[in-house]
Amino acid sequence: MSTSTPKSTNITWHGANVTRDEREEVLGQKGCVVWLTGLSGSGKSTIARRLEQKLLEMGRTAYVLDGDNLRFKLNKDLGFSPEDRTENIRRVGRVAELFCDAGVICITAFISPYRVDRDAAREMVPDGRFVEVHVATDLATCEARDPKGLYGKARAGEIKGFTGIDAPYEAPAAAEITLSTADRSVDASCDALIEGLQGLGLL
Amino acid sequence: MSTSTPKSTNITWHGANVTRDEREEVLGQKGCVVWLTGLSGSGKSTIARRLEQKLLEMGRTAYVLDGDNLRFKLNKDLGFSPEDRTENIRRVGRVAELFCDAGVICITAFISPYRVDRDAAREMVPDGRFVEVHVATDLATCEARDPKGLYGKARAGEIKGFTGIDAPYEAPAAAEITLSTADRSVDASCDALIEGLQGLGLL
Repeated sequence: MSTSTPKSTNITWHGANVTRDEREEVLGQKGCVVWLTGLSGSGKSTIARRLEQKLLEMGRTAYVLDGDNLRFKLNKDLGFSPEDRTENIRRVGRVAELFCDAGVICITAFISPYRVDRDAAREMVPDGRFVEVHVATDLATCEARDPKGLYGKARAGEIKGFTGIDAPYEAPAAAEITLSTADRSVDASCDALIEGLQGLGLL
Repeated sequence: MSTSTPKSTNITWHGANVTRDEREEVLGQKGCVVWLTGLSGSGKSTIARRLEQKLLEMGRTAYVLDGDNLRFKLNKDLGFSPEDRTENIRRVGRVAELFCDAGVICITAFISPYRVDRDAAREMVPDGRFVEVHVATDLATCEARDPKGLYGKARAGEIKGFTGIDAPYEAPAAAEITLSTADRSVDASCDALIEGLQGLGLL
């Protein structure tokens, strides 16, 4: 665990009476983080929520942390500056870590454009429990979809710092799973993901 | 849900494909937040972790958010000023909300000295799903235990702003459960808590 010096002092670690193994035994599954990354409009949230549904239908306990939704609550104080994006992803990683430790399959759906931030989130969970999924819908397709009209606003200069337009997206160099969604239905994408998780021994 | 205006804009809500009811059906339990509040040394963390163990032995899915442990990670950037204590509890409340929504019994163990902060955490979850538990060990007993030597340091002026010494503790006015621990073992306290949760229809 990466627990570099915190700001506050006078803290002691409590030995957990219950281990993750024991929690996983009760749940009958392994906790993990399924980290979806990709451009706005790539289909991350849609895939995440359909995947959650499919996992629940399989009797698994899963939960989606969704960028758009989390921003209203835990991360309400953060905007879209590079620093705020990094803090956003740091907090999401820490929450995902808690869910993983609780034995839950935690699916996160965030653009998470910076490689270093995704790598930091990976470091928060035990080896083999972080599954980076590149939702690799290309920019032209995302822009053509433009489900929230954001690309239009970004091209018109009404939104600044928009990923893919005037802010960078650093594609994963070695994602566990790369999903090409352009020629695939949401269901087919989720089925491919489930196969990938099975191949990794997580389902 | 209290979702007052966030700093960031260009956000849309995603309708969850899966409801909390459906997740709870898979888990066979109700998600809730068991919020332990009390002085340093009152026994919150010990009770929280033993309660988690007992719930797991009952086949329930539970998870402890622990003040001391969370501070190394999600809340590493926060200290013990009144503002930082409030932000600490705000974030814990938001994480507990997510666990509750996931169908998990989330046990939190934080001093959480300010009534307004605990009330804000209560507002984050649906009615009937927040159980405030006052671990009502009195100051003299906590100070006599002094498991981490912190009261000694606070009395010596080596720690400033220590709850109960030179910072306030606002006891709950209407906690769902009040635990007097001075004359009770940890196991007996947990059994009383489990009875209380059963009485509230949460177990």
